[in-house]
Amino acid sequence: MEREFLDWLRSHTPCHPCAKLGLNDDAALVSLAGRDEVVVTTDLLTDAVDFQLDKHEPRRIGRQALAANLSDLAAMAAKPLAAFVSLALPRGGGAGYSALELAIALCEGIIPLAAEFDMALAGGDTNTYDGPLALSVTALGTTTGHGPLTRSAGQPGDWLIVTGPLGGSILGHMLDFTPRVREAILLHERYDLHAAIDISDGLALDASRLAAASGCGAVLNLDCIPISQDAIALAESEIESRSANTCDLPTLALRHALGDGQDFELLIAADPTTARQILEDRPINCELAHVGKLVPEPGLWHQLATGDRSPLEPTGWQH
Amino acid sequence: MEREFLDWLRSHTPCHPCAKLGLNDDAALVSLAGRDEVVVTTDLLTDAVDFQLDKHEPRRIGRQALAANLSDLAAMAAKPLAAFVSLALPRGGGAGYSALELAIALCEGIIPLAAEFDMALAGGDTNTYDGPLALSVTALGTTTGHGPLTRSAGQPGDWLIVTGPLGGSILGHMLDFTPRVREAILLHERYDLHAAIDISDGLALDASRLAAASGCGAVLNLDCIPISQDAIALAESEIESRSANTCDLPTLALRHALGDGQDFELLIAADPTTARQILEDRPINCELAHVGKLVPEPGLWHQLATGDRSPLEPTGWQH
Repeated sequence: MEREFLDWLRSHTPCHPCAKLGLNDDAALVSLAGRDEVVVTTDLLTDAVDFQLDKHEPRRIGRQALAANLSDLAAMAAKPLAAFVSLALPRGGGAGYSALELAIALCEGIIPLAAEFDMALAGGDTNTYDGPLALSVTALGTTTGHGPLTRSAGQPGDWLIVTGPLGGSILGHMLDFTPRVREAILLHERYDLHAAIDISDGLALDASRLAAASGCGAVLNLDCIPISQDAIALAESEIESRSANTCDLPTLALRHALGDGQDFELLIAADPTTARQILEDRPINCELAHVGKLVPEPGLWHQLATGDRSPLEPTGWQH
Repeated sequence: MEREFLDWLRSHTPCHPCAKLGLNDDAALVSLAGRDEVVVTTDLLTDAVDFQLDKHEPRRIGRQALAANLSDLAAMAAKPLAAFVSLALPRGGGAGYSALELAIALCEGIIPLAAEFDMALAGGDTNTYDGPLALSVTALGTTTGHGPLTRSAGQPGDWLIVTGPLGGSILGHMLDFTPRVREAILLHERYDLHAAIDISDGLALDASRLAAASGCGAVLNLDCIPISQDAIALAESEIESRSANTCDLPTLALRHALGDGQDFELLIAADPTTARQILEDRPINCELAHVGKLVPEPGLWHQLATGDRSPLEPTGWQH
């Protein structure tokens, strides 16, 4: 069925100047518009772990797979260039789709998002096998004139900023979010950002990763963490079903905001003056929030009203 | 287990100048040594389709996954730069290995081959799930000063040359072959090659693909196709077990040479003068053989002793 799928794909992917050979050769040739550095990220998503084929539309699943990669490019402030999609399709299809229909539906989610970010769908590999649906997406981008934004150049004293409300993304945001690519490029261009990471595995865990990569620790101010409506909805349903060990709604909702995966907002470190300027300017259409700071001592804490710190568990999605 | 695996990986992958950030950020940053064109190829291999975990050593499986990608780079005469390895590991492991041990063993096959071709293992993604082992490898390369070698610039009259004996690779060659990267770069540098493809799905099928991409047809001379010892061994065992519909050893062996997948030799098109020169010079340590030619009419044929052509089935591995 690979041939039929490729025929479909060729007639549904627009030509793109960066992918010179189309989908017609042993490998893709990607032009970098004069730059000689490429940013590469890859994600492999599997059924029942990252999505549920019996519950989620294949179009949304396909979109999610590319969006997660775009979020990684955003974390590096890279401009998207080209995507490569490899599929391991259940031989007999699934969720009422044949294998071929599944491949097409996944791409019907991928292609519009690629177009939205002016990205070529430049290649891939298609297989059927006796196993659950697995998608591997690789995305290429280029650094802008301001170079890459990394995790590792945060400095003690830097403020930590997030780009939106967190938690509860399992209720839908994880499938439908718009990766913060434009926001990251704009912020990186206008301000002297030190470091960034995308919050894919939970704020607490990803904050501790950014801090560790920068040779620092992080202190979060729990009162300032923006909590999504979905985190509150999840907390409410837990209280209703008595599945949580507390009935304190704010505590439960905060737990989701700290530890749920797949928020795909950015966590950014910048020196206090720059961070204050960003929060004052509000140059992007996001709920920017100052959630904490980097400190010299390795570890993760939360700030107490007394001015002291208390250790905080780096909760989150451990693969 | 991803963290443990990454710890292992970081201590077992040498630093590489082209991968500046190591395995430590949201995405990899690959330097292209001044070139602004990148060649990208990706393969997804699954258990029971491309390999058999209960039969093949994980090290050989890992090696094979990268080697198949290198063969695609070879077909484009591209210099390997960086590889990205994504794993979907059976949650409980397999073949006596835990998921973590499996991930490590796969990489113990990948890392030496990457080193042999001076390639960075620059990133990837690791997951466990309730499914069979699946590996997705993406390889990046750069074109040399002679540009990319494609499938599509063959011309009627071009001779078709293969770089080695074909067929029966299922007996072991498919796992242990050395991709023709160096040979392709050398030939592309010294001679005016028109087109190339790597023989991954069978000579007949891949010859018809190269011809079609070049807007031509192909005529194969069946007497001149180099047949591997493994193709003969397979034919002998079929005769012994009476599983074939003929007892004619040469016919059976030829059928393997034409239609078996995963030879990973190159099929090259060059004008007759250049092709003769290559065959006379023998500039690479391979059994080069002149197996046919391109013709203006689309299709695939074999040459008859009478000088006429007879249609030939494009047998091979259809995904």
